[in-house]
Amino acid sequence: MKNDIQLFPGERVDELYANDIKIIQSSEVFSFSLDAVLLADFTKPVLKKKGRIVDLCSGNGAVGLFLAKKTRAHITQVEVQPRLADMAQRSISLNKLSEQVSTLNIDLNDIFGQLSKDSIDTITCNPPYFANQPTSKKNPNPYLAIARHESSATLAQIISTISSLLKMGGKMYMVHRPDRLQEILRLLDSLRLVPKRIRLVFPKKEREANMVLIEAIKDGNPGGLRFVPPIVVYDENNQYLPEVRRVLYGTD
Amino acid sequence: MKNDIQLFPGERVDELYANDIKIIQSSEVFSFSLDAVLLADFTKPVLKKKGRIVDLCSGNGAVGLFLAKKTRAHITQVEVQPRLADMAQRSISLNKLSEQVSTLNIDLNDIFGQLSKDSIDTITCNPPYFANQPTSKKNPNPYLAIARHESSATLAQIISTISSLLKMGGKMYMVHRPDRLQEILRLLDSLRLVPKRIRLVFPKKEREANMVLIEAIKDGNPGGLRFVPPIVVYDENNQYLPEVRRVLYGTD
Repeated sequence: MKNDIQLFPGERVDELYANDIKIIQSSEVFSFSLDAVLLADFTKPVLKKKGRIVDLCSGNGAVGLFLAKKTRAHITQVEVQPRLADMAQRSISLNKLSEQVSTLNIDLNDIFGQLSKDSIDTITCNPPYFANQPTSKKNPNPYLAIARHESSATLAQIISTISSLLKMGGKMYMVHRPDRLQEILRLLDSLRLVPKRIRLVFPKKEREANMVLIEAIKDGNPGGLRFVPPIVVYDENNQYLPEVRRVLYGTD
Repeated sequence: MKNDIQLFPGERVDELYANDIKIIQSSEVFSFSLDAVLLADFTKPVLKKKGRIVDLCSGNGAVGLFLAKKTRAHITQVEVQPRLADMAQRSISLNKLSEQVSTLNIDLNDIFGQLSKDSIDTITCNPPYFANQPTSKKNPNPYLAIARHESSATLAQIISTISSLLKMGGKMYMVHRPDRLQEILRLLDSLRLVPKRIRLVFPKKEREANMVLIEAIKDGNPGGLRFVPPIVVYDENNQYLPEVRRVLYGTD
């Protein structure tokens, strides 16, 4: 494997210092952000080498690469956009993780040609946040439009796919906006996924939550949903609070 | 109205200093607790004198009395247990609020003989927390059993009653346990109630939430659910944190 990974014009390499993972990013396409970092931190992936992990809507592959530092299991990244999937593949090489992490550049509708139903232990997903309604103002940049809007898959399609892929007892981890939580909980309920743990993320102590992290178990026992302590991102001086510094930099 | 309110053996008068409301309590029956105080604080009741408020599952009447300090509207407390309804009625007299607050000692199933559908502006409810399953260990004290378990009304019956009583645009406020939130959101969704604001209560910073406060609007526009900043009750030395002191004592 060659060490010189090609970077295309406009691309840069960002590093998550907490786990020394390098990610190829570009301002022209979707960049990973705190959402991906907190999702990977929240996830309790299967640990054994024979375990199988899928990251859906994987974008440039940040979540899957962060997870690689927490488990020996194989991680498959699924991304519909060729450009993002290509960046993700090069980031895998850059981090010398080609044996553990792979990328599938396919549409969710084609996933069962590549992955078997009831076969996955852990699925992570940082899906597009905004419902694809005719009134929603889409980004003229098509890369960003697909990443931010449900152009290629609705939340219902995504959660249905997750449910089909997971083994009984397998776990799903998702990050989304709090105003979609009711819909997410309803979809989970109708698709054999039992929510077990929720964590809210507040940008500041006095502000409303702007992210929600959800863990659900396929065919889990009903009930027992827990809201674990929330994360507050910034203090009053707009500095990261210690928990977020730990997740980003590996130190308080 | 006589000023000497009769107290029966075992009864005492507790005061919420933040609003000078006195409540007749008894260790033999359900006592109001922080749940009721936080529910009243979370509630944005209709304010005008012609407005109508109902407090369902009102117990000894704490929530309704606390609300009386926030609004001029009429408040009807609905409680199935005669002993609690009697205590509530005496607390109303004790606080000289008989013109604004009244008590109905009736079963929820009989409520539409007393209150019209689509007539109420604001409904509060601190319902029994535990589903009445055969396996649940009930309190041998029947007063506490009914207050803590869904012996006399299920959550579905309660939310259905709330939906029927509320005007279009009327608001519901409920406190419950977080592990029931998925069920509550599903029931709201099926009963024309749109959740708009949720507040989680954490006993301590590092502990899981043990209460959730929910605001919903009858026939509200879909979407727009907000998770407002959480309440943390105790600091690491088991002292109330300033926000809770404000709610309990009216001072930080």
